[in-house]
Amino acid sequence: MVTDHRRLRQNIGVAVDNCIFTVLEGCLQVLLIQMKRGPFEDRWALPGGLVEDGEALDAAAARILREQTGVSHVYLEQLYTFDGRKRDPYNRVVSVAYFSLVPPGGVELQTTEKYRAVRFWNLDRRPRPLAYDHEDILTYAQKRLQSKVQYTNVMFSLLPSKFTLSELQSAYETVLKRSLDKRNFRKKVLSLGLVEASGERATGGRHRPAMLYRFENTQPEVVEVF
Amino acid sequence: MVTDHRRLRQNIGVAVDNCIFTVLEGCLQVLLIQMKRGPFEDRWALPGGLVEDGEALDAAAARILREQTGVSHVYLEQLYTFDGRKRDPYNRVVSVAYFSLVPPGGVELQTTEKYRAVRFWNLDRRPRPLAYDHEDILTYAQKRLQSKVQYTNVMFSLLPSKFTLSELQSAYETVLKRSLDKRNFRKKVLSLGLVEASGERATGGRHRPAMLYRFENTQPEVVEVF
Repeated sequence: MVTDHRRLRQNIGVAVDNCIFTVLEGCLQVLLIQMKRGPFEDRWALPGGLVEDGEALDAAAARILREQTGVSHVYLEQLYTFDGRKRDPYNRVVSVAYFSLVPPGGVELQTTEKYRAVRFWNLDRRPRPLAYDHEDILTYAQKRLQSKVQYTNVMFSLLPSKFTLSELQSAYETVLKRSLDKRNFRKKVLSLGLVEASGERATGGRHRPAMLYRFENTQPEVVEVF
Repeated sequence: MVTDHRRLRQNIGVAVDNCIFTVLEGCLQVLLIQMKRGPFEDRWALPGGLVEDGEALDAAAARILREQTGVSHVYLEQLYTFDGRKRDPYNRVVSVAYFSLVPPGGVELQTTEKYRAVRFWNLDRRPRPLAYDHEDILTYAQKRLQSKVQYTNVMFSLLPSKFTLSELQSAYETVLKRSLDKRNFRKKVLSLGLVEASGERATGGRHRPAMLYRFENTQPEVVEVF
């Protein structure tokens, strides 16, 4: 990478966009904002915006997410950089996409003056197409999520700290969009050391309450789950 | 991501940098260029440079690699975007890093007027520190490579189309920087369906020539190797 000390002659902007996923009522959901003005008025979009000159990319992603949706303190992982040649009608803006999995109900949304609405949408029933090139970003993020749950322990960030194995299986089934064999699933997650019994049991229900489990490791690690 | 039709007020440049790895004589090597002028005169760097306004990021990575080193027709995979706040003494330039594994001797290097030299360096004996933030990029790329060989079939791009199991094991040992048990290694790669016998045998040597193998799939795929 070679530049000199003259001002850059490029005319390419740098933005960040956030794909925030959760699982609610057996559906994979994504956080979207509805635009109030501009070329995409009324369309829905991923929360995102331009990076400030002295601002780190990660910090920009966190700031913009907080400003636009009220969501803070989530672990944002850089996903991919989209080249933006087709994305913005007025300027070329490359977008560094981030993604995160959050527990259902684990974030509190705030609508701001700048947008019509902020909410999670079921991926299958969300408004389309999204603004800019956000369809491409969301498609990529969903694939990466499906891939990541298969070879890492990332699912920990979607679940409460303690959960039943049925809840865990249901979360995997929702993200992967397929059903899993109950017996094999339990054998797998326990033999892998992905989760461990907490010693506590769920409350409520008519039957004997199910055992509650927790993730053995809540730092990101590579684990071949499927 | 929200912009309007005024010219962007940001002053952030967008560059690409390429980490091209190979394995030669049991060493992991990386392709570097030596700067001829500018603030990093005589220092070594990853081949990289500024993206043109209308140019796709992937295309820029391929063009710059070709222009600076003569290397073309390699599969460049986007790695990570570095935020460049500390990287360039004159301008902030975010860098989209790409990486590739190439077979030893599979690329022909050309030195151009613009650089003093172009060559592969053993990672352990390369000149340091590299220019800009290229130490950070190279460290990240090496980690990603070590991780990727463990859960994908990416090693196919490092080896010739046919190879012995000893050559395959040696390539893994070089990238992972640890020795592997020969019997377990063979059992693993064969049972996984990662490689298959080609039916041919290596030539030369005093003993019975070893069987030549090939990768079953030379499209990128997830395979838990270790």
